[in-house]
Amino acid sequence: MRDLGIEHPIVLGPMMGVGTPEMVAAVTNLGGLGSFAASALNGDGIRTIVASIRQKTQGPFNINLFVQDTPHPTELELQKAFALLNPIRAKLGLAPATPLAAYCEDFRAQLEVLIELKLPVVSFTFGLLDAKSVERLHRAGSIVIGTATNISEARAWKDNGADIICAQGVEAGGHRGTFIGGYDGSMIGTMALVPQIVDDVGLPVIAAGGIMDGRGIAATLALGAQAVQMGTAFLVTQEAGTHPSWKEKIRAATDTSTRTTKTFTGRAARGIVNEFMQCMQAYEDDVPPYPIQNALTTDIRLAARNASLSDYLSLWAGQGAGMSKARQADIPIATLMKQLIEETSQVLTKWCEKQPIRGEAVR
Amino acid sequence: MRDLGIEHPIVLGPMMGVGTPEMVAAVTNLGGLGSFAASALNGDGIRTIVASIRQKTQGPFNINLFVQDTPHPTELELQKAFALLNPIRAKLGLAPATPLAAYCEDFRAQLEVLIELKLPVVSFTFGLLDAKSVERLHRAGSIVIGTATNISEARAWKDNGADIICAQGVEAGGHRGTFIGGYDGSMIGTMALVPQIVDDVGLPVIAAGGIMDGRGIAATLALGAQAVQMGTAFLVTQEAGTHPSWKEKIRAATDTSTRTTKTFTGRAARGIVNEFMQCMQAYEDDVPPYPIQNALTTDIRLAARNASLSDYLSLWAGQGAGMSKARQADIPIATLMKQLIEETSQVLTKWCEKQPIRGEAVR
Repeated sequence: MRDLGIEHPIVLGPMMGVGTPEMVAAVTNLGGLGSFAASALNGDGIRTIVASIRQKTQGPFNINLFVQDTPHPTELELQKAFALLNPIRAKLGLAPATPLAAYCEDFRAQLEVLIELKLPVVSFTFGLLDAKSVERLHRAGSIVIGTATNISEARAWKDNGADIICAQGVEAGGHRGTFIGGYDGSMIGTMALVPQIVDDVGLPVIAAGGIMDGRGIAATLALGAQAVQMGTAFLVTQEAGTHPSWKEKIRAATDTSTRTTKTFTGRAARGIVNEFMQCMQAYEDDVPPYPIQNALTTDIRLAARNASLSDYLSLWAGQGAGMSKARQADIPIATLMKQLIEETSQVLTKWCEKQPIRGEAVR
Repeated sequence: MRDLGIEHPIVLGPMMGVGTPEMVAAVTNLGGLGSFAASALNGDGIRTIVASIRQKTQGPFNINLFVQDTPHPTELELQKAFALLNPIRAKLGLAPATPLAAYCEDFRAQLEVLIELKLPVVSFTFGLLDAKSVERLHRAGSIVIGTATNISEARAWKDNGADIICAQGVEAGGHRGTFIGGYDGSMIGTMALVPQIVDDVGLPVIAAGGIMDGRGIAATLALGAQAVQMGTAFLVTQEAGTHPSWKEKIRAATDTSTRTTKTFTGRAARGIVNEFMQCMQAYEDDVPPYPIQNALTTDIRLAARNASLSDYLSLWAGQGAGMSKARQADIPIATLMKQLIEETSQVLTKWCEKQPIRGEAVR
């Protein structure tokens, strides 16, 4: 993708709790664009990660943030949320929930650090960055990617100066980026979403959602996207920080293993159905919004991680997770990238040898 | 697609209330596969339609049926359903609902007629045909297509002898074909569904859902499908029996205009949101199953049709409906087919000239 200065149109999906500087650098050094989800880090944390990435690669990379306001939950809101989570906390041997000092990092402070670091690429999801901040990022030399799950969001990002739209289809694992209209209206399949955003905004589009191999890459380029963003496919690589019990669930996944749920974080996100999701399903509309619920379930997920209890981890994965089976267990990113590039090349070569449709052949 | 004896891998989606023998023959005569949704017809009705299609084309065509049992709703079930619909009936000047003599045609009788007619292609949705009936259709010389919204359904069709799987992604307009597992688990995007079904069943796959132009056709072939099934794109052609107020809504559609609802027919189906869907949204889980609700809303939709009230019509459409805008109003099918084939050819030619990914270029 010329705009990003990358050789292969493959962007690593930013994945919190999974990404490492090694992962980012590996994808970049193989000609793709590595991404790091930095939303959980404060300014110093971001500086450290970026320094580590810069030690490992000379190429372009992307730092991703969630656009969010700092919430101030009421006592009542918290008590209601605690009541839903305390039975699960008890099961895991955790004390009843108590109010937290903070429910997320300060987004404005994070943004200042991104500007200061003069990053090659920055991407945003969950909301819309104001035009002035986009302009400041541009002056710092950064390419700005805005995530959209519908045309209205893509237009809003274009209006505020974004250079590239990341179009997130319903198949995508992890959090839905929706910020205009409700989730229900924006559960749009990649096949329908990408060409509509391409036609409407006229900006380069990176497509995300359901893309797991060279077939998906070729398909997405056919739809008019200039690159793909892949998360789930990279979850089972050696360099990924994915918990072993999460990797196991990805490899056992089928086409119907995932659902979206708000119960882990307060924001709709797609993951493999487990006991936590099932227990909490009835309270889908009762949990507090992101980032409050996210903060409140953090120690539950940490305890689950430490005890390898995949039933209480957020097992983010896309609808294509079942295609992970086709790969060897825990391949290095270098192997995966090589496979993806070769597979894509094979699809294209096959077509160019025997075009299945010829314009002149209309009867 | 060699298996179907068609020149171009384009299958017309069977659409009840829209399809006409002219439409079927037009698509077939242009090198695609025309399809007719015959579920609402009795045996004689099917015979008449097939005779009319055969007068208009020598080529292959497809007759589609819904696999269903004849329901026998209880008095209580009907009273509950009537109570929900009577306020809407009153608005349209219709008398309160009363029990019907029958709620659908007899599926077994329809099937016997399909076998008797020795059709080139037959397709089924909503359920699974028993192996013995598939075998009888084979002996009658028919190719059998089974519709699947997940891998389990595709496997079941393969086990029972189907020749081809139609993989229906979440983007698709009209009824969801789901018959194993609930609707929620099978809202799988075309991008993720098609390669998983291709890999699992090893049968030829026709992909449906979100495909509106040559980009979508090329993308779907890249995913490993051998053909596409397109419905929404054909809704706005001259030959289609689509009501003018429905066509108008399709042309005004955006990416977020559609939802799935059970309230029109008792089976989840995707259409453009209108007043009926909004009024009935709260009763999504209270309406009787297909075909009972379908039968009970038939005269509501007929009255709406006669009065051009699009707010009470079932405005079936896929998530790609917004792409209809790119076409001229009411083009003939010949023009649409020509455009689709040329567009697909353009996508492929562009790639073959400058392959965006080369296997040997891995750094």
